[in-house]
Amino acid sequence: MSKADSRPIGVFDSGIGGLTVLKELALQFPQESFLYLGDTARLPYGSKSPSTIRKYSEQNIIFLEKQNVKAIVIACNTASSQLTEHEFDGLPIYNVIEPGSQRALEVSSSKRIGLLGTRATVNSKAYTKKIMEFDPKAQVFDQACPLFVPLAEEGWDSDPVTNLIVFRYLTPLLQNHIDTLILGCTHYPILKNSISRVTGSSVELVDSGEAIARWLDRDMKENRLGASPGVEPRRIEIMTTDHSDHFTEAAMRILKPVKADGFRVVDL
Amino acid sequence: MSKADSRPIGVFDSGIGGLTVLKELALQFPQESFLYLGDTARLPYGSKSPSTIRKYSEQNIIFLEKQNVKAIVIACNTASSQLTEHEFDGLPIYNVIEPGSQRALEVSSSKRIGLLGTRATVNSKAYTKKIMEFDPKAQVFDQACPLFVPLAEEGWDSDPVTNLIVFRYLTPLLQNHIDTLILGCTHYPILKNSISRVTGSSVELVDSGEAIARWLDRDMKENRLGASPGVEPRRIEIMTTDHSDHFTEAAMRILKPVKADGFRVVDL
Repeated sequence: MSKADSRPIGVFDSGIGGLTVLKELALQFPQESFLYLGDTARLPYGSKSPSTIRKYSEQNIIFLEKQNVKAIVIACNTASSQLTEHEFDGLPIYNVIEPGSQRALEVSSSKRIGLLGTRATVNSKAYTKKIMEFDPKAQVFDQACPLFVPLAEEGWDSDPVTNLIVFRYLTPLLQNHIDTLILGCTHYPILKNSISRVTGSSVELVDSGEAIARWLDRDMKENRLGASPGVEPRRIEIMTTDHSDHFTEAAMRILKPVKADGFRVVDL
Repeated sequence: MSKADSRPIGVFDSGIGGLTVLKELALQFPQESFLYLGDTARLPYGSKSPSTIRKYSEQNIIFLEKQNVKAIVIACNTASSQLTEHEFDGLPIYNVIEPGSQRALEVSSSKRIGLLGTRATVNSKAYTKKIMEFDPKAQVFDQACPLFVPLAEEGWDSDPVTNLIVFRYLTPLLQNHIDTLILGCTHYPILKNSISRVTGSSVELVDSGEAIARWLDRDMKENRLGASPGVEPRRIEIMTTDHSDHFTEAAMRILKPVKADGFRVVDL
């Protein structure tokens, strides 16, 4: 058995979306500490070019490495679509594409899988390539949904306007008779009620947070990340690259019932 | 009479919104050349903090100064709300707040003025302060509209979804019996059809592009900017800080009938 390792797990996203992943991880691993970085000064990543997204993501990874984390989760599909799972200076870097792709194939019977994402994630074809690599017979139908992030940021979940926009984006996918739908942006679980209302119960939703939590659980059991510490209470700290009261409010709403121990603004 | 000055006028915004201003200026001043900078790698500015917005805007101004422009128009309400009209190294810097405020007071009879803007513009109270400075008896009713920019970027103008969202944001303003409405973000003229459908004909819309064009016309007539050159055909060049095919397509659609002579990506 490996030694206990009380260093936090680093998690980053361009903004609040990755908090849906942090919440899942915090609930799943109650003894682990977390350090969350939201690159709010430069958000959103979803409409930026691949090279800019890679540059910003690498800066975030270097910053978190300096904070002495034991692993880094890229809790942003757009950034994950540009950086595959790898090691950086011996530090395991997880993305959300592989766990989400694997989970979608596990729950799908027909192997007709829908994908919702930002323009950058959809254009990257990262999910399609990963799913086809796991199962060449699977079919992926994708749809970019640029309005979902601002709707989630505005807090208009379960709102008639959101239902209408969800209906607009999902109709072409549902006409392709998918039985599984990947929420390929960490903001989208905030709109889960509206999305499942349009898909109905015959389509299974795959959430990045839940998928990466299973993935990390496997590595924890294999002791890849060091055993969890047992004594001190764990800490959850949230850092952003820009100051915003709106962020703090939204973060507390999204994380509930998980509580953050501190918020601070950092320079990368 | 001053000497002809063939240097271009610099115009900047965080993205495509300022193109509505560029279009007005290009139509109004057919002999002037323009150099447009869209800071697309760091857009949007509307949800960022005042200090970050100021930092980015100052970097844009320094960049345009190096390109040898004869004046700079801040074609972004969010950036304008953080930088007043001033001179920088002898270069006149125009923002859109003062022209828009003055124009609103000219067209309003009741002096009950509505303002739509990004969260940052509304929170800055820049329009309210400027309007009250010009006419202390005027009343300003403001509303942040975070979904308007992505709707404009998505190209959903004159769309039922947009009409519904416009209705949602405008209802509280209309209950205050405004007779004039400032489109306090340079993206918003793209949604003018949906907005005027909700306001009806009794509310006058004030567009930043039209207002700043009048302002510049005054300075041209007073020879503050040097006389327009008369011989060579003028050039309109568009620079962005990130590569995007979506930007180029959207830019051509918004600028029509004005044509850009070139697009290129620059590093600030």
